Amino acid sequence: MSPIAARLPGQDDTPDNAAGDPDAAPVESPVREPLLTEIDHVAIAVHDLGAAIDWYRENFGAVVDHREVVEKDGVEEALLKVAESYVQLLTPVRDDSPVAKYLEKKGEGLHHIGYRVDDCAAALEAIKANGGKVIDEKPRPGSRGTTVAFVHPKTSFGTLIELVQE
Amino acid sequence: MSPIAARLPGQDDTPDNAAGDPDAAPVESPVREPLLTEIDHVAIAVHDLGAAIDWYRENFGAVVDHREVVEKDGVEEALLKVAESYVQLLTPVRDDSPVAKYLEKKGEGLHHIGYRVDDCAAALEAIKANGGKVIDEKPRPGSRGTTVAFVHPKTSFGTLIELVQE
Repeated sequence: MSPIAARLPGQDDTPDNAAGDPDAAPVESPVREPLLTEIDHVAIAVHDLGAAIDWYRENFGAVVDHREVVEKDGVEEALLKVAESYVQLLTPVRDDSPVAKYLEKKGEGLHHIGYRVDDCAAALEAIKANGGKVIDEKPRPGSRGTTVAFVHPKTSFGTLIELVQE
Repeated sequence: MSPIAARLPGQDDTPDNAAGDPDAAPVESPVREPLLTEIDHVAIAVHDLGAAIDWYRENFGAVVDHREVVEKDGVEEALLKVAESYVQLLTPVRDDSPVAKYLEKKGEGLHHIGYRVDDCAAALEAIKANGGKVIDEKPRPGSRGTTVAFVHPKTSFGTLIELVQE
């Protein structure tokens, strides 16, 4: 059977099949190396940081590993370490903080997920190249000395995603 | 200074200070061993499971490790492994599924967090003993052979929590 005859209806010479190899597997979508090395953190927006810290300690024995005010984002965070990940309890420190607006609109609860990556800039560019909407056009400093970038929930199934490079 | 004179105003002989040691540190709340061994999964409710799986593969190289319909909960889940945790993409398989109601009311996005514990029953009882509201009064079978129990978001800062014992 010639390579021409082996073609399926509608199949044409896409770049993926430019070599014309009839035994080539169909290419459904770009294949890439795994980029996510760990769930870095899950962020939970709360009104009362102290009360939330107490609740996690009293119920789960989870204690604060790191606490920091992130002025740029208008938040104070408390990180509770769980294995190699964190539960990030998050509260606004000023009224114009995005987290303050979130609490007003949606109430307390899961706010975003932070995925740990080796290269924040590369992961961000990959999302932009795939048509993803981003909040940070370039990586920027995050808490505890990390480099971070936020991806807009609009193109990621309603999920606010933070890319975190340690 | 006598132990009596060292007492602060309002302090009395609580069981924590029954020995009367004036150098004893104040006991703020019950101290317990850490119960959370890992973030087991972060669940994301989506309308189109296939599209969400594609997005995670194309953007992050994250692939499906396990896929299962959980009839009791009326959902189909796809688990993408990230280190020792999972991203759980979740979609309803019938209209009366709690996840269907969630999607209708709140739209796509972060749905719950699953904490891995060594003893689901003990963790659940600890929460109940602390006045926490639970959804499952007793542990029950979850997906991939786990034992699970859900904790109501009302008493956990708006966060639906699943306790997962492997």
